[in-house]
Amino acid sequence: MDVMVLTKIVVIFSVSLISDAFVVQDQGNFWPLPKSYVLYNSSIALNPSLFEFKVVQSDLNKCRILNEAFKRYSKIIGDSLSILLRRGQEKRKYSHNHHHSYRQVLDGPKFLEHLEINFSGLCETLPYFGMNESYRLEVDNQRAPNTAILSSRSVWGILRGLETFTQLLQVSENGLSLAVRSASIDDSPRFSHRGLLIDTSRHFLPVETIKLIIDGMEANKLNVLHWHIVDDQSFPYQSELFPDLSGKGAYDPRLLVYTIADIQAIILYAAVRGVRVMPEFDTPGHTTSWGFGQPGLLTKCNNLVTEYGPVNPINEDNYLFLRDLFNEIIHIFPDGYLHLGGDEVNFDCWASNPEIKKWMVDNKMSGDYAKLESFYIQNIIDIVEKQFRTNTIVWQEVFDNGVNLYNSTIVQAWTGNYEKELDRITNAGHKALLSSCWYLDYLDTGGDWKKYYKCEPLSFGGSAAQKALVIGGEACMWGESVDETNVVQRIFPRASAAAEKLWSPQDDFRNIHQVEGRLDAHVCRMKRRRIPAQPPNGPGFCL
Amino acid sequence: MDVMVLTKIVVIFSVSLISDAFVVQDQGNFWPLPKSYVLYNSSIALNPSLFEFKVVQSDLNKCRILNEAFKRYSKIIGDSLSILLRRGQEKRKYSHNHHHSYRQVLDGPKFLEHLEINFSGLCETLPYFGMNESYRLEVDNQRAPNTAILSSRSVWGILRGLETFTQLLQVSENGLSLAVRSASIDDSPRFSHRGLLIDTSRHFLPVETIKLIIDGMEANKLNVLHWHIVDDQSFPYQSELFPDLSGKGAYDPRLLVYTIADIQAIILYAAVRGVRVMPEFDTPGHTTSWGFGQPGLLTKCNNLVTEYGPVNPINEDNYLFLRDLFNEIIHIFPDGYLHLGGDEVNFDCWASNPEIKKWMVDNKMSGDYAKLESFYIQNIIDIVEKQFRTNTIVWQEVFDNGVNLYNSTIVQAWTGNYEKELDRITNAGHKALLSSCWYLDYLDTGGDWKKYYKCEPLSFGGSAAQKALVIGGEACMWGESVDETNVVQRIFPRASAAAEKLWSPQDDFRNIHQVEGRLDAHVCRMKRRRIPAQPPNGPGFCL
Repeated sequence: MDVMVLTKIVVIFSVSLISDAFVVQDQGNFWPLPKSYVLYNSSIALNPSLFEFKVVQSDLNKCRILNEAFKRYSKIIGDSLSILLRRGQEKRKYSHNHHHSYRQVLDGPKFLEHLEINFSGLCETLPYFGMNESYRLEVDNQRAPNTAILSSRSVWGILRGLETFTQLLQVSENGLSLAVRSASIDDSPRFSHRGLLIDTSRHFLPVETIKLIIDGMEANKLNVLHWHIVDDQSFPYQSELFPDLSGKGAYDPRLLVYTIADIQAIILYAAVRGVRVMPEFDTPGHTTSWGFGQPGLLTKCNNLVTEYGPVNPINEDNYLFLRDLFNEIIHIFPDGYLHLGGDEVNFDCWASNPEIKKWMVDNKMSGDYAKLESFYIQNIIDIVEKQFRTNTIVWQEVFDNGVNLYNSTIVQAWTGNYEKELDRITNAGHKALLSSCWYLDYLDTGGDWKKYYKCEPLSFGGSAAQKALVIGGEACMWGESVDETNVVQRIFPRASAAAEKLWSPQDDFRNIHQVEGRLDAHVCRMKRRRIPAQPPNGPGFCL
Repeated sequence: MDVMVLTKIVVIFSVSLISDAFVVQDQGNFWPLPKSYVLYNSSIALNPSLFEFKVVQSDLNKCRILNEAFKRYSKIIGDSLSILLRRGQEKRKYSHNHHHSYRQVLDGPKFLEHLEINFSGLCETLPYFGMNESYRLEVDNQRAPNTAILSSRSVWGILRGLETFTQLLQVSENGLSLAVRSASIDDSPRFSHRGLLIDTSRHFLPVETIKLIIDGMEANKLNVLHWHIVDDQSFPYQSELFPDLSGKGAYDPRLLVYTIADIQAIILYAAVRGVRVMPEFDTPGHTTSWGFGQPGLLTKCNNLVTEYGPVNPINEDNYLFLRDLFNEIIHIFPDGYLHLGGDEVNFDCWASNPEIKKWMVDNKMSGDYAKLESFYIQNIIDIVEKQFRTNTIVWQEVFDNGVNLYNSTIVQAWTGNYEKELDRITNAGHKALLSSCWYLDYLDTGGDWKKYYKCEPLSFGGSAAQKALVIGGEACMWGESVDETNVVQRIFPRASAAAEKLWSPQDDFRNIHQVEGRLDAHVCRMKRRRIPAQPPNGPGFCL
């Protein structure tokens, strides 16, 4: 089959350049907003049973990522129709004053028969940092009423474009069929790393819940699941080499653990949706649960409330243990990045331990616990970066405490004034991730997504070179107050605010009422896809 | 069959009288805490297939409330066992350090075969204000190892006692069967009206969601579902007499409405669980959605942002309409109480309307809009109390604004200093309901149930006669930010705090850590019953 030649000349307006009046008039139901788009006042009817995805290059018919995506999005489109039909059958006889929908022009009995996938890249299988996610999408009821075209140089761009394609779906004027809004879209993300942190130590999350979260990430074009898998409270990672870690450190060593098979299933589920799974094994603090299964790992505290403190940095056996454990981890998690934690290290326990104090005197760092932390972290980073050739990420304290880091180590800002922090991190030549303004565990009454939406990652006063070092950010859903009963609802749509800030072009003057309207539509779309997103904006309803 | 004679002498300690040391030692897993109880350090094994409820009086074998309750609680007990067995099959080989459970004495292969229901009242069918909910429960593995006894003078007491019986269920020492803790319990509620408000106007709640909320109410011994069914945003009540009200005022006139059949199903579902369904039709404010289907009802505002304001109190047709509507409502909702609302009336619209101003001059109340509100509310209350002989409840502003109320009208406090408000209301001779401190729509980070738990309804400085007028209270789950995705999670266990304050004896010195532990257990119990209660207290897990 031949590639359809694009003879049409499409004028693409950058969103931030076109007039406010036009933007206010219609931003569609996009979330996140594409880099640039034109929406036309016309639509093409779509009948799911007469519609298919068509890959132009025949040698890609077996590309798994694409084929799984076609199945998935065919189902999403078909489900939209069946919901519509149910609604159509119950169609009200009364007029309705509460809302009015966009009025479209449906000219004649034409149907959109194909979304032509014009793809010129490799059939990649695992998403990675910096992957190409750009795409173009053309739906034109005048020039090509039977065929829409989705073009990208990468499978990841195709995934993102398919998601956007579903956001052009509308109810046709008679209320009984679907239509696709005509549009011309040229899209790519503003930041490469668009993450969501989940925490499975404070509360265990079942595999099915994590998959539902990944569904939501795909719908929001988020691409990194930062899996804070273990912490003080429990150690649900079931290691093959060190089974006692979960055997003695999990809430329940059989029921509340992630087996290697579970983890592989989650990684695969995420991969076909263009989502990386980046594990965090936080040390030397936040490790209470590690101590049950690995005697000698933690520092014995003297005369403190807690019996054990952070990892004991002067016990050389601990580095051998961590080397072996991290070696297993990087083989189970294929992502190129391992998060090493390093936050909130309590120095009191180290200071209470006479052997550590003596060792510090012997090693000329008496009383300087930040230096001791540096010594520990540098050892760990050396293992991961040098021996395992895996990139590392650490929380900001590691940088703040003056640990001598490789330039390649990424620093994640989470506390204090984030503008100053990002300025300092990037000024020191490090890549940075922003999370400070996107902590989803903080609750407020009402539609608190706006607080997250106000956060602009590049508002700090650094140079262009510094700003180029900000590779993205993450919304963080710490697990103290969430389990399978409420975690998905609390993430979505609040994380959607961060998702748009990380994908869409900077535009500090975007009309917040328009954004509200798009988010309402996006929440209803997620709910139709069985992602239980909670109400974003006060009273309302979805049909 | 004969009634088993209680020859045993049981010394009942009042909880508030026994020493703190004993209370701290063991409060069981009760929620809410019974009025008085003794827990013994022994248990009797229970095998659900060898266990049955046995009504002593043969003429009550056909009592529907009881039979439905036996089915329901048999299932709850059976489900507990099947969860246990699943867990037993996966039983861990490792010891576990995170928690330790109460150690019990299981002496010999005895099983509890019966819970004998010793019931001496009428087989009532509908719960009502002031119904008798007291009961006694005796489980004694020494004196009567085969039979436990639940005694009450009313079916409602039997329901509450069955709930408490399930709270004595434990895992037996071998981890493979259930056991019932030996105990002697004498229980009755502190307040008669223990309510939960739901709001189906800001977001529609499906019937199934409302039933799940009622399940949770039963598990917390709450007994009034205050159904704030309509408001400004939508009118989902489908009236037979006035179909245009929902036809034009619902979010969707076919899909997002409650038919009379829906309402009857909810009332029946609640009734067999000992829960009253009390509707609220809030006027004269909060009525925007009413106006679409009932032209002339609302006041036309002049030169204001909103076109229509509160109900027009000078249009005599409106009282005829409301009389007919309320007449329908009291026939559909069998509860003896109708909530008339009356909160947050905006006087600006009335003041902008020249006809109303003229009428006020003519009727010698020029400029006194509180008097106009009085005029309206008195008319409405007259209709409901005098013509329909139905009790009324109003929000506190009606009282605060000096409306001349019947003594029988109950006033519900919701805003401002609740101690001063309750003092004023009861000092004027009115019965009072407290909600001010139990607004579940206010969100805070972390385990915010403690804030609700701190509220003591009788802390105000009134006389004993005044305090006797406080008939209870309600937790209020206003609907602005909740729909079917998150409402149950947000209600439970936060409303559980109010439930215990309203049921259990006053005890300002209860150890909060013990309360935390009981609430954790209660949440896990609710989750086993498929009520998705969210985590109350930070990190943890349920098995």
